Amino acid sequence: MTDDFVLRDFSRDHHALALNTATLGHNVEGQGAGWSSEQVIDACAERGFGAIAWWRREIGDRAFEIGERVRAAGLEVCGLCRSPFLVGPLAPPSRQKILDDFKASIDMAEALGASCLTIVVGGVIENSHSQRDSLSHVAQLVADMAPYAQKAGVKLALEPLNPVYGGNRSCLVTVRDAVDLCNRIDHPIVAIAVDVYHVWWDLQLGASLLDAGAERIAGYHLCDWLADTTDVLLDRGMMGDGVADLKHLRSQVEATGYDGYCEVEIFSANNWWKRDPAEILDVCVERFRTVC
Amino acid sequence: MTDDFVLRDFSRDHHALALNTATLGHNVEGQGAGWSSEQVIDACAERGFGAIAWWRREIGDRAFEIGERVRAAGLEVCGLCRSPFLVGPLAPPSRQKILDDFKASIDMAEALGASCLTIVVGGVIENSHSQRDSLSHVAQLVADMAPYAQKAGVKLALEPLNPVYGGNRSCLVTVRDAVDLCNRIDHPIVAIAVDVYHVWWDLQLGASLLDAGAERIAGYHLCDWLADTTDVLLDRGMMGDGVADLKHLRSQVEATGYDGYCEVEIFSANNWWKRDPAEILDVCVERFRTVC
Repeated sequence: MTDDFVLRDFSRDHHALALNTATLGHNVEGQGAGWSSEQVIDACAERGFGAIAWWRREIGDRAFEIGERVRAAGLEVCGLCRSPFLVGPLAPPSRQKILDDFKASIDMAEALGASCLTIVVGGVIENSHSQRDSLSHVAQLVADMAPYAQKAGVKLALEPLNPVYGGNRSCLVTVRDAVDLCNRIDHPIVAIAVDVYHVWWDLQLGASLLDAGAERIAGYHLCDWLADTTDVLLDRGMMGDGVADLKHLRSQVEATGYDGYCEVEIFSANNWWKRDPAEILDVCVERFRTVC
Repeated sequence: MTDDFVLRDFSRDHHALALNTATLGHNVEGQGAGWSSEQVIDACAERGFGAIAWWRREIGDRAFEIGERVRAAGLEVCGLCRSPFLVGPLAPPSRQKILDDFKASIDMAEALGASCLTIVVGGVIENSHSQRDSLSHVAQLVADMAPYAQKAGVKLALEPLNPVYGGNRSCLVTVRDAVDLCNRIDHPIVAIAVDVYHVWWDLQLGASLLDAGAERIAGYHLCDWLADTTDVLLDRGMMGDGVADLKHLRSQVEATGYDGYCEVEIFSANNWWKRDPAEILDVCVERFRTVC
């Protein structure tokens, strides 16, 4: 962090704003608006978003087509969610199946022209009782896959999740641990995704991010932590509605030199996903310009 | 940590085992067995527990009587739960009410002969969006109350909670932050409670505990984190049933020189609280001797 560090001003220019399509309810049957990918792209372009991050379930066999459509609208594809879980109770049942699906996710990210693939590493290996051993397995799998990702030009973005997911979804729970994992893997294609939902409480965050450095921060994800959250999976808050110190968090990210997208990713089954997607996008823009 | 550090062996001597009465369902109406405090004391004494930690709701105006009963049975009172929330949405509505209830909890701990009072600090101050400011308020309140606690001979045990509670129950979420808070308050009566449920995921724990030092560790609480936990408040696991690396965690606590009680505290509305308290206590002893 240099003395002349100045936080980017989004109040009049929100080109750094990106949409993670989870925010609209994924277009999953029974959730969200059921907008087509084309409708999502057009609505983001109209509102001046700079990029979109997609989920594999929405892309199917149309990766190249959707990627081209995004770029034709003047936006970038800033990410694809996500790799399979690599360890733990939710991971595919064999190493071969994990590697196959890992490769398939990298292939899709390449075809889409996505700058990075999000990796949610999975929980503690069953019956191991060892977060450390589980992270060692993760390190090995990611190291094995890194050359493949490099050839595809797709960054692998390790995303530490809130410790509440430590048991089943991610034994990687802090940016500190993600930096250590990057250092252990030691490959230029391996980086970190930083998400407000997962890190807002971490008073060591600033130091960990400076250790990471801007070149290893593959994305910054926005939402808010609701004080009275009712569900740790599907009750994320819109920026400004929770307790996270959003400007302070962003200042810590940008103090590294990070100047990439800020990607709104809100899972909200009982609130935002029940609303008109156009309204959701409008609120994202307004909040991004005022409270982020 | 010295080179000749040896983990205590509980396989043949479980005198270091303590019961937090929450494990039996608090005797709250409609939960647990409804055992009297005397029944709890006798059952713990029969099984060789070394101490009991109580909750205020169970004590009422019988603090001195229950404390004497515990000691007559050959056990100690290792704690009382707890102070009021000091900040955040669940705290009493005025500073005076907070201080009054804080004093009342210290008074009860003194009458009970409890060695420490647990402090759960409360969540982020509403509309502040600042974990830091909230912790500053906590520091001031605890510092103001420390002389009163010292006079009563009751340690104030700051308990960092899992970050999932950061919004409403505890803006203090790591042992690192608790050590920093202790340093800021700088009073010998202020210490830290370390609970497996809250810290199991923290790979920086060992270093933070060494910074704390044994004299500032007022208690070590046992349970387990279930990989497929269904409720972050009332679905804690029995030791051995989850993903926590219990022996490694204890080794980090004892590496400081800590030689105090290991207190089982399991909130489990849909599993353990539905069982016979005698069975719960038997399983606690068996697991303590084998997996902790």
